[in-house]
Amino acid sequence: MYTPKSFSVTDQELLFDWIEHWSFGKLATCQRGRLEVNSYPFLLDREKGELLGHMARDNGHWQSTIMADDLVVCFDGPHGYVSPRWYSQPNGVPTWNFVTVQVSGKAELIKTEAESLWVLERLSENNEERYGEGWTLAELEPSVLAVMMKALVFFRIKIHKLEGKAKLSQNRSKMDRVGVVQKLSAKPDTQQQELAALMRKEIKRS
Amino acid sequence: MYTPKSFSVTDQELLFDWIEHWSFGKLATCQRGRLEVNSYPFLLDREKGELLGHMARDNGHWQSTIMADDLVVCFDGPHGYVSPRWYSQPNGVPTWNFVTVQVSGKAELIKTEAESLWVLERLSENNEERYGEGWTLAELEPSVLAVMMKALVFFRIKIHKLEGKAKLSQNRSKMDRVGVVQKLSAKPDTQQQELAALMRKEIKRS
Repeated sequence: MYTPKSFSVTDQELLFDWIEHWSFGKLATCQRGRLEVNSYPFLLDREKGELLGHMARDNGHWQSTIMADDLVVCFDGPHGYVSPRWYSQPNGVPTWNFVTVQVSGKAELIKTEAESLWVLERLSENNEERYGEGWTLAELEPSVLAVMMKALVFFRIKIHKLEGKAKLSQNRSKMDRVGVVQKLSAKPDTQQQELAALMRKEIKRS
Repeated sequence: MYTPKSFSVTDQELLFDWIEHWSFGKLATCQRGRLEVNSYPFLLDREKGELLGHMARDNGHWQSTIMADDLVVCFDGPHGYVSPRWYSQPNGVPTWNFVTVQVSGKAELIKTEAESLWVLERLSENNEERYGEGWTLAELEPSVLAVMMKALVFFRIKIHKLEGKAKLSQNRSKMDRVGVVQKLSAKPDTQQQELAALMRKEIKRS
């Protein structure tokens, strides 16, 4: 990932937080010169430094994932256009602010049913806690669960490289940054507001 | 991209609309077994079937982009977790709804200053119209513009393949779909509300 120094984020705990927060990741694999890209919900094992996931067995991507010459998983935070009009000085140029995490690593299949179930349970638990209403895997009839388990392939990605980029106008004056925050905060789109909140944190930190 | 039939979107005009709407795309390139992924604002030339963009000359990605064995640009719409609790029937399983477009193609550098300027102007115009306040390139001092132009590399991607996926619960009953729309619409996150709006359109269409 192209990351000028002022935008680089290296704090592993923060990057892990972001992965958990923006957990619907984009897996890109390259195998024998062919790219495949698909999005999947991911689970992070912070202690082992692993991403865990699953996909439909019908989805051939699991094969190119475990055979990949290279693979990257992207976890994207909010992004938004920044107009030069929002700066205090003239002669600024348009840009796009965003926050993202990229994981590189090596994938392998999860072969035991116990671990596969654990991944499903934890994924549901996390997502239900954040977005749902407390549904658990135990609510499924055993026969339905068995069919689902057979239709899925589970995998882990051992994280070899973890990169973070927070392009939040750190290369601009404080006055310019505050101007951008004000404009983004006032947008009706909550993504722009989240971007403004991340910029505000970054201004405080700097 | 893994796209079961019920989620496949093939209407080129609609996919072009989505690209223009979610224009901050993710370019993944694969060259000699090595992946590189970065996000850029893109401009679509609908008539020529080309994506146009630029990146910092310091960002080596332009080299692997024009030399790529394979490349994909992803334009992501809203996405959101769907809880089985939102369905009318028991024994549903958790999933993630989302809308995305993938472009495959071949990149080449834009070599004339006239065309590079045209890309910059159109990009600014589009983004200012949607997110900004009418700033135009003409507001830059010529010397500033000249420095910027030298610091950028412009490229086009000739679109060879265009794929769309709208995973919007089309595989569920109408009652289930309406239930999901209600829950997503009620979320404070505007991304969830946009996802609900796309689902509503899809229910009408079906």
